[in-house]
Amino acid sequence: MSLMVIVMSPDATADDVDAVVAAVESAGGEASVGRLSVAGGSGRTFIGVTGDLALIDALRIDEMRGVGRVRRVSTSYKLVSREHRTERSTVEVGGVTIGPGTFTLIAGPCAVESAAQTTEAAQIARSAGATMLRGGAFKPRTSPYAFQGLGEAGLKILADVRDRTGLPVVTEVLSVRDVELVASYADMLQIGTRSMQNFPLLQAVGAAGRPVLLKRGMMNTIEEWLMAAEYIARAGTLDIVLCERGIRTFEPATRNTLDIAAVPLAQHLSHLPVIVDPSHSGGRRDLVAPLSRAAVAAGADGVIIDVHPRPEQARCDGGQALTGPELLPLARQLDDLTTVLGRTTAAPRYRLAG
Amino acid sequence: MSLMVIVMSPDATADDVDAVVAAVESAGGEASVGRLSVAGGSGRTFIGVTGDLALIDALRIDEMRGVGRVRRVSTSYKLVSREHRTERSTVEVGGVTIGPGTFTLIAGPCAVESAAQTTEAAQIARSAGATMLRGGAFKPRTSPYAFQGLGEAGLKILADVRDRTGLPVVTEVLSVRDVELVASYADMLQIGTRSMQNFPLLQAVGAAGRPVLLKRGMMNTIEEWLMAAEYIARAGTLDIVLCERGIRTFEPATRNTLDIAAVPLAQHLSHLPVIVDPSHSGGRRDLVAPLSRAAVAAGADGVIIDVHPRPEQARCDGGQALTGPELLPLARQLDDLTTVLGRTTAAPRYRLAG
Amino acid sequence: MSLMVIVMSPDATADDVDAVVAAVESAGGEASVGRLSVAGGSGRTFIGVTGDLALIDALRIDEMRGVGRVRRVSTSYKLVSREHRTERSTVEVGGVTIGPGTFTLIAGPCAVESAAQTTEAAQIARSAGATMLRGGAFKPRTSPYAFQGLGEAGLKILADVRDRTGLPVVTEVLSVRDVELVASYADMLQIGTRSMQNFPLLQAVGAAGRPVLLKRGMMNTIEEWLMAAEYIARAGTLDIVLCERGIRTFEPATRNTLDIAAVPLAQHLSHLPVIVDPSHSGGRRDLVAPLSRAAVAAGADGVIIDVHPRPEQARCDGGQALTGPELLPLARQLDDLTTVLGRTTAAPRYRLAG
Amino acid sequence: MSLMVIVMSPDATADDVDAVVAAVESAGGEASVGRLSVAGGSGRTFIGVTGDLALIDALRIDEMRGVGRVRRVSTSYKLVSREHRTERSTVEVGGVTIGPGTFTLIAGPCAVESAAQTTEAAQIARSAGATMLRGGAFKPRTSPYAFQGLGEAGLKILADVRDRTGLPVVTEVLSVRDVELVASYADMLQIGTRSMQNFPLLQAVGAAGRPVLLKRGMMNTIEEWLMAAEYIARAGTLDIVLCERGIRTFEPATRNTLDIAAVPLAQHLSHLPVIVDPSHSGGRRDLVAPLSRAAVAAGADGVIIDVHPRPEQARCDGGQALTGPELLPLARQLDDLTTVLGRTTAAPRYRLAG
Repeated sequence: MSLMVIVMSPDATADDVDAVVAAVESAGGEASVGRLSVAGGSGRTFIGVTGDLALIDALRIDEMRGVGRVRRVSTSYKLVSREHRTERSTVEVGGVTIGPGTFTLIAGPCAVESAAQTTEAAQIARSAGATMLRGGAFKPRTSPYAFQGLGEAGLKILADVRDRTGLPVVTEVLSVRDVELVASYADMLQIGTRSMQNFPLLQAVGAAGRPVLLKRGMMNTIEEWLMAAEYIARAGTLDIVLCERGIRTFEPATRNTLDIAAVPLAQHLSHLPVIVDPSHSGGRRDLVAPLSRAAVAAGADGVIIDVHPRPEQARCDGGQALTGPELLPLARQLDDLTTVLGRTTAAPRYRLAG
Repeated sequence: MSLMVIVMSPDATADDVDAVVAAVESAGGEASVGRLSVAGGSGRTFIGVTGDLALIDALRIDEMRGVGRVRRVSTSYKLVSREHRTERSTVEVGGVTIGPGTFTLIAGPCAVESAAQTTEAAQIARSAGATMLRGGAFKPRTSPYAFQGLGEAGLKILADVRDRTGLPVVTEVLSVRDVELVASYADMLQIGTRSMQNFPLLQAVGAAGRPVLLKRGMMNTIEEWLMAAEYIARAGTLDIVLCERGIRTFEPATRNTLDIAAVPLAQHLSHLPVIVDPSHSGGRRDLVAPLSRAAVAAGADGVIIDVHPRPEQARCDGGQALTGPELLPLARQLDDLTTVLGRTTAAPRYRLAG
Repeated sequence: MSLMVIVMSPDATADDVDAVVAAVESAGGEASVGRLSVAGGSGRTFIGVTGDLALIDALRIDEMRGVGRVRRVSTSYKLVSREHRTERSTVEVGGVTIGPGTFTLIAGPCAVESAAQTTEAAQIARSAGATMLRGGAFKPRTSPYAFQGLGEAGLKILADVRDRTGLPVVTEVLSVRDVELVASYADMLQIGTRSMQNFPLLQAVGAAGRPVLLKRGMMNTIEEWLMAAEYIARAGTLDIVLCERGIRTFEPATRNTLDIAAVPLAQHLSHLPVIVDPSHSGGRRDLVAPLSRAAVAAGADGVIIDVHPRPEQARCDGGQALTGPELLPLARQLDDLTTVLGRTTAAPRYRLAG
Repeated sequence: MSLMVIVMSPDATADDVDAVVAAVESAGGEASVGRLSVAGGSGRTFIGVTGDLALIDALRIDEMRGVGRVRRVSTSYKLVSREHRTERSTVEVGGVTIGPGTFTLIAGPCAVESAAQTTEAAQIARSAGATMLRGGAFKPRTSPYAFQGLGEAGLKILADVRDRTGLPVVTEVLSVRDVELVASYADMLQIGTRSMQNFPLLQAVGAAGRPVLLKRGMMNTIEEWLMAAEYIARAGTLDIVLCERGIRTFEPATRNTLDIAAVPLAQHLSHLPVIVDPSHSGGRRDLVAPLSRAAVAAGADGVIIDVHPRPEQARCDGGQALTGPELLPLARQLDDLTTVLGRTTAAPRYRLAG
């Protein structure tokens, strides 16, 4: 469903209006004519249009005689919208819940490098009260000369660590080709920022029978993000968690600019849970704590944080990974903030932390 | 003082290097030559350069024979930097302190419309625990057909309300011509986002004998923001408070994108206090609370919030102004967060709030 | 005059609609109700609104019960619009015409450094067929430690060179304080990119009795640019030339991104002449030629190019200045392109070049 | 190969320097120490670093004691760089050459809708002198509710029209899964703007034995664009044509902002041909002509233009498609510009046009 408003120019004739209506209908749309009175003026006619987006796009309305301005008022997502489901949703991943009323801490290495490193990272995460483990086996790297991840060997390590720590695993899938493989090891499939508009991949993960973590494209609007979620939803699952991870701007001091307002906005437009990635947005270790605190305060349903036992030896983004001594006090602070804000933290955190 | 690093290309000859050094010195700079070994390669020569920014800019170094890449490593601000003053500064405005350890709430109408509206807004601010009053008498408006403010009449209203409520006043000055006038009424001079690089104005307010609230340009980097502060500092005062108010990005859902990371970053680079404007960044009433909470959590030294007794009648940005019933619970929440984060709120708040 | 379209939500009641209409009228606006049929649905009511921008801004319409979306359709500039004047305008500066049908080459140093340097630069400009001289006496510099220009001494040099070469002079004015002074020496007043929204300055230059060169703000939209021109026009002159000089984006390879599409767009929306600054947009000497050619091809009414007899000694932006041997072949190429595109170059060029 | 320059702070000790060198070497990198004299100061030590990007990334150098600033100077692409191949390359596609000295016009429908529509569009293209046919069978659409293309049926239509018109076909591939299929029909594989960082797809098309048209990501830097090309090159082919199609900025008047400077810059950094898409960058029919002319003038090796026999009925981006009567005069104008700029147009154009 699409909705356009065409404002005719002051000198538009009745024939001009009829021509626009005819064009709209020729494209299978519906048109209805209205009139705006203009302060001390002769007023303007406008035309409301509904129909198929692709066809409406093709109308040369803005070039038709007598047409002033054309404005679109559309909703291109439905299943993930608040109109479709008024209550905010909770997504369950291997016994862990993400959603309203709770706060979920997800932590782990940016990239899985070895069983030892992943195990140590998981222990750090668990002892800090994290209830889920993150870790990359397939890494999208801007340069072909950068470390690309361990692939299936990395998935095996993650599954093994999950079995020993009880932490459900979320990991990125880069290609339709790998969806089945990754789904056979992971508890949750992650769509990375560079894949947010990889539509065949969105459809494949939507049909894979696993909950999905959808990172916002660093170059995409909130509306495009929700439309990407709609692709996943239409393919078969509404167990989708949105993750704000920063957008690209002119500011060079940070890798990306965390769009903190996107958290309440996405929660306002969609019923899906929204978490924040403070590690990849800032790209700096010293920003992880303040950005994590800001995320809780803005209402995020959780955060996903890079940790590494020895960041100086990390093969990917070590510059932003926290160590145990850095994560623990932050996790405690996030608990305090969560409590002050009247939310509880996901119960499993304490059991696991014991 | 400027610092550049010139990396010569692999095939650069000794003559090429000498030519670059000669060019640097001809422009009054100093050069020193070093060498980088390259893994399994023949290595590269590079040249460090120091001197006057303007002159260094003019060197055609990037086009000289044998030159590979040119990188600048400069500090263009000194007085406002942490190198100049290691401890974070506290700025006092009419008995109110803004700086580390405290949290300052500034509130008031976007524009001064009348004595009654300003008084009511000040009462809302005060009863919520605000310790300073904001209000615009000279309004920079994108359209010449929009309300431009009451001018000196507005300043008189602000001063009168200040005298009756005890709340120091911060108000914007738009032109060098008006600095003396505004300074005669206001306790703190505000440089708005569109004036951040109005250099003559920065110099004039720096010499006006009043503390200055410097909003970040919506189109400016953090480094440019600090250089603008340096203009003010060199003109005579270090009583400068920085205000992050959102930057311009591709995201259309908010008026601007609040760069929450800019708060810890500016505090890391500069000793000046940093506050946040949650009203103008989001441009939406429903975002003021989450963005204010995020500001406290990120470490901001205060927030400046638009309030209006009757937003629906506001002549400027009413869509983002809070009413008393909206500001009070938020102020309480900000107090709670401040306490949890181990900071106290500016003492006067309680006296005034009583 | 403003125009808004309010789309009510599907479940809006007649009372909701009445309440919106009442709110609009309470703010002095006018409202008229229409209805959109929605494919296979129950349809939607919408309300057209007109009135004062500032007041309309203040309506809390988006939060009223039953309101779906709010869209504004406004023209905030009139005098500079094509609706006000259908034919494209020609601006005359000291006998030189800028506008449709011709192509004007403006050249000169970024900053006036000395009589000798300015004279040499003017000779380069003239021999290349330039019909106007550019040169900065008051320089807006991001860093307070950079060269700030010669001030009035620079203006005297420009006026003297103008008298000896016959080239009218365009130079930047930074402050309301200096408008009269600069106007007493220059033939055309330049508003720089950082001053595009310095509204008091726009009003002052508009009343100064000189034609104005209005550079686009590096982070301003085309609409904001035209509203800035409207400020100048309302203050007293329509002798305004718009100058596209690049906008700020995420791309680091160039200082700014030349928005080449802004040339035909601004000419489509406004009757004012539009020229391009290929020197400051790219910030690289090697881009001046291709960007200048692109400007002509896109329909620009002229270009303004930095030239310097000895760029390696320039005190400002030497890295982008062309020398005589670089400008001459480019100017010839621009002439060829102009001819192929069916336009003539400003007649004076040949007389002066003789 | 990577290259970093670490500038130590003024108070760095010899131990600090040794610690940094040790850290670099612990990560398998190589370090060499140099010293910069500072005007009237005690000077600064810096350290040059080379090694593996991923490992260097992980060094916590910026946080080590005594470290001032860290700067990277890297080349993350080699095969596509001018350093690898000094001469600009020419890519051949089904007998048509794209590269220096010539100008190639590619035209066709945004989306293949039917045999009739595609045939008519090809005839328009051919009669205008186009030497290649574009057309989408797999369409990446932001909304799941928009027309997604005809898939293989569309590929069959394109191949059939190619056989009847002699125009080689370029069409987009969206998924690794479809690469073989698309390569079996198309003469050239297109990577769309949303797929520029779909690394598995880049590798797959690089190995498919067809030349590749690589569109720039709408939010990617020129350097990232060249690294994406490097992925393709490493997978097996250097027959890559780069296509600038506009980047995402804050300007709402155009769909994207055509980065015209990217044409000469990409040609300067890489030996690959660079063409421009004036249709998708502006997203407006009225901008296609000025942007196409600007592309030729800036040195582009070709343009790729949307055409449609009946744009008002197009199912995708009809608002920007040209008709025959619009394309022909533009093509003639582009020929004239090409000639004036001393380049010839691809020979086949005339034979086909006959």
